[in-house]
Amino acid sequence: MVNVKKITNQILTDVIRKRPANSFKGTYGKIVLIGGSQNFGGAIIMASLAAVYSGAGLVTTITDPSNQTPLHDWLPEAMFVDWNQFEQAEPIIKSADVVVIGPGLGTDPSALTLLTKVFHLVESGQKLVIDGSALTLLASNNLPLPKDSVNILTPHQMEWQRVSGIRIADQTPEKNQAAANQRHAIVVIKSHRTQVYADNHVYENTGGTPAQATGGMGDTLAGMVGGFVAQFKDPQKAVLAAVYSHSAIADKLAEKQYVVLPHQISEALPKFMYKHQAK
Amino acid sequence: MVNVKKITNQILTDVIRKRPANSFKGTYGKIVLIGGSQNFGGAIIMASLAAVYSGAGLVTTITDPSNQTPLHDWLPEAMFVDWNQFEQAEPIIKSADVVVIGPGLGTDPSALTLLTKVFHLVESGQKLVIDGSALTLLASNNLPLPKDSVNILTPHQMEWQRVSGIRIADQTPEKNQAAANQRHAIVVIKSHRTQVYADNHVYENTGGTPAQATGGMGDTLAGMVGGFVAQFKDPQKAVLAAVYSHSAIADKLAEKQYVVLPHQISEALPKFMYKHQAK
Amino acid sequence: MVNVKKITNQILTDVIRKRPANSFKGTYGKIVLIGGSQNFGGAIIMASLAAVYSGAGLVTTITDPSNQTPLHDWLPEAMFVDWNQFEQAEPIIKSADVVVIGPGLGTDPSALTLLTKVFHLVESGQKLVIDGSALTLLASNNLPLPKDSVNILTPHQMEWQRVSGIRIADQTPEKNQAAANQRHAIVVIKSHRTQVYADNHVYENTGGTPAQATGGMGDTLAGMVGGFVAQFKDPQKAVLAAVYSHSAIADKLAEKQYVVLPHQISEALPKFMYKHQAK
Amino acid sequence: MVNVKKITNQILTDVIRKRPANSFKGTYGKIVLIGGSQNFGGAIIMASLAAVYSGAGLVTTITDPSNQTPLHDWLPEAMFVDWNQFEQAEPIIKSADVVVIGPGLGTDPSALTLLTKVFHLVESGQKLVIDGSALTLLASNNLPLPKDSVNILTPHQMEWQRVSGIRIADQTPEKNQAAANQRHAIVVIKSHRTQVYADNHVYENTGGTPAQATGGMGDTLAGMVGGFVAQFKDPQKAVLAAVYSHSAIADKLAEKQYVVLPHQISEALPKFMYKHQAK
Repeated sequence: MVNVKKITNQILTDVIRKRPANSFKGTYGKIVLIGGSQNFGGAIIMASLAAVYSGAGLVTTITDPSNQTPLHDWLPEAMFVDWNQFEQAEPIIKSADVVVIGPGLGTDPSALTLLTKVFHLVESGQKLVIDGSALTLLASNNLPLPKDSVNILTPHQMEWQRVSGIRIADQTPEKNQAAANQRHAIVVIKSHRTQVYADNHVYENTGGTPAQATGGMGDTLAGMVGGFVAQFKDPQKAVLAAVYSHSAIADKLAEKQYVVLPHQISEALPKFMYKHQAK
Repeated sequence: MVNVKKITNQILTDVIRKRPANSFKGTYGKIVLIGGSQNFGGAIIMASLAAVYSGAGLVTTITDPSNQTPLHDWLPEAMFVDWNQFEQAEPIIKSADVVVIGPGLGTDPSALTLLTKVFHLVESGQKLVIDGSALTLLASNNLPLPKDSVNILTPHQMEWQRVSGIRIADQTPEKNQAAANQRHAIVVIKSHRTQVYADNHVYENTGGTPAQATGGMGDTLAGMVGGFVAQFKDPQKAVLAAVYSHSAIADKLAEKQYVVLPHQISEALPKFMYKHQAK
Repeated sequence: MVNVKKITNQILTDVIRKRPANSFKGTYGKIVLIGGSQNFGGAIIMASLAAVYSGAGLVTTITDPSNQTPLHDWLPEAMFVDWNQFEQAEPIIKSADVVVIGPGLGTDPSALTLLTKVFHLVESGQKLVIDGSALTLLASNNLPLPKDSVNILTPHQMEWQRVSGIRIADQTPEKNQAAANQRHAIVVIKSHRTQVYADNHVYENTGGTPAQATGGMGDTLAGMVGGFVAQFKDPQKAVLAAVYSHSAIADKLAEKQYVVLPHQISEALPKFMYKHQAK
Repeated sequence: MVNVKKITNQILTDVIRKRPANSFKGTYGKIVLIGGSQNFGGAIIMASLAAVYSGAGLVTTITDPSNQTPLHDWLPEAMFVDWNQFEQAEPIIKSADVVVIGPGLGTDPSALTLLTKVFHLVESGQKLVIDGSALTLLASNNLPLPKDSVNILTPHQMEWQRVSGIRIADQTPEKNQAAANQRHAIVVIKSHRTQVYADNHVYENTGGTPAQATGGMGDTLAGMVGGFVAQFKDPQKAVLAAVYSHSAIADKLAEKQYVVLPHQISEALPKFMYKHQAK
């Protein structure tokens, strides 16, 4: 019988360290986010917003050229690379601490090509967050996960069904855990009570509100996971803290709002993280 | 003699249900908004903003490609489809719960073609909100309304004259009701005291302010109607609640403002709906 | 000896009427703003922002196509026309109540062509605000002002020197008045104490702060003049009220700011005008 | 032994003069900012934002054409020039009081060509701020600094190593001072305790927070240095005041935020400078 541990606010002070005085942007990680087709540009913008506002040191967004302007309108802090110019993207991906791929990536052949290239590029010491359409492509093409990177999957229940083959109705902690272990991956299964499978442990989130049930919430979480993993040493704990923070901020906003917009969660991150950092 | 009922704040708690804990974005409807030519891009942006901020689950905006960037600058939460690529738009329209067509659509031949295609696509179970230039096209081309969808028309008095043939001076509740019934449509006739004709009932709004007399107010209402109908079961009541909320928010803002900007109404929706939801 | 009257806050309640309950966007005027080359797009955006936030009913901006997106990013409420497509612009200019030309227009041959066309189009009953580069073109090409429209010129002192031939050091109320009378124009000469010449009267503004000394202030004033003239009956008084409001808002902001950004003045208009409207 | 003086808040009231009543935008300087490739557009936007919000009179941004729209989305107050049209840029650079070159400039051959042209254009009486990639190009091409302008270099420690040849570990005040003197330049060496070398003096900043350790902080400082130098007479003191203000605002924001976004510093400038101006 799998023991499901609750994720509580204790994870925040465990993970969000007080920043050392003598530090610079390199201290807080280089993160690359890949996604955003012409149709789904908002997704990669929301993910990038979450990464920057969570405090990642240097953020580069690799996306369709039609998203260059709205990216900078939301985030002059992010750098931009045209995903059609892979020779430019390649060295940036190689030198990244964290790669987030999937938000708004789409599922056409060029998206698959890009995903495959990234899977070949990432190496030991890098963390790879696989989200959204990247999960769909992973499943439909039976792609093996990269061997050396720390792989973090962030499916909702239907995407997890595609990836794992376990139907939603059958997604028990036992089965999910077995599937996560087999993939040597940290798996975040998003639902109204999100679960995290990592290293033979199962965690369940204690927050979350139906006010979050709107497009873009998952993109924001993927960016936050990227931002937390870029800054905090233990990837498993960083994921738990990102999951908890995402819903805790939403819960707070939902005390006054019928619906919570994803970009509001990102914008609330700097103050939230300040309050809940290690003493 | 037609009995004209007042729309009061009672409609809000009747309609805006408390969200069930175990829900996801699909629970709150898929909505597609179609409009925004090169000249009138702001109209579809304002309508989309209203749809997202009212809490619709998944929002796609089908518009001129020149509006992709400003759409995402206001709304990374919305998905974008180029209205010249109808093969992309078609499946999204087919699977939508609600289609809003008209804000900033324009009246050129390509707009008419698009409107006609949409009228052929929509089916039973879908709600269709027809606004702005779509109403002008409807009138000038004598287009029959789609047979199986729930059709909601949101004309101002001049547009209603075009559609119904009833001159503004002659637009009595009796005549309006007959014309609405004949079309089997819910009709929202916008004026400083907006009326709603639905299912042999006539309702008159009790709010509204001259501070709202500015371009874009109608686009915002169309988006709100779409967003409310996508989330709340009874389309007629959802329309009434959208009409009431639109003017109630404006009335509140007009307590301190000489003019109310349409986008301000959308941005005020999440808190307004929170306050006035069912207990 | 010319009698120079002070413009005081009395002008506000004289001009800013309480809006009648039964009104619609047409009640508050159609305004067209023309300007914004590739290099000076911000100018026409700031002018348009001022027109919309002052409460003009319907605002159309005719500008370089490269400004379509930033216009809608600031103002989904404004309609856009590409200034290279004059056949689209022409009917809109003809049906406008107010035309503002000049902010960021530039001085190249195509700007001159556009200005000349506008001068030929405007007719009796229309108000024409001539600002920025349009004044420079007017002077350098000795263009006669249109005969039938109400013409309002908004030069700073150097532009007024170009237009009137009166050197800055010689710009006395007497000489300015004679030059304004000769042109049958309302002339707003902008300086740290702006003067208005109209109908054989001279007025001097009593507000204004060095915190306003930054690029874009004049563009904002031109848009406000357009917005006030579109809504309020007496053009001369409307101009005075716009001039006074512009500096009064700046003075208020300058109580806490070292520099006042032009767009902040526009954003403050709805609340300012509410407070100072006729009782 | 070099005497390292502390930069304290005394520098603010020394430098930030009360604006004279009778002044206009020309009083506060013309500033040109050059940078922003397709990949690094956000950098020049952040620098331009800092220049405008610090109160510079007239700001022109010379950048890649793909940055025109996001520049105006953040700053309608700035003018835009396409950096591929040097014949347009040249007279603007010549008539500027201050030129800032480097934020997001990139290091490709066209960037080097642009930098070289600017170095040839600037003359006595002009101030030149050299930042970011311009410093890298300076070092890798052994470019001599312009002879007649006041040159201000704003490297971080690694860029200073490239420029001066002094390895980070060896960057003592003595060696830095010698290298700065040899270049007749004001040098701002950015670190968690930024140092300024000027005119045989060495100053060390007393503020700064690890919450600033994020991409774009340096671009913002470069724009502030430009804005302060454009307005305040003594370049050396203006640089000190810009450095101090940048970290003092960040320190204040960091009392509530885990990370401080660069654009927040710019947006806080008008109120900060108001509070700390000369009495």
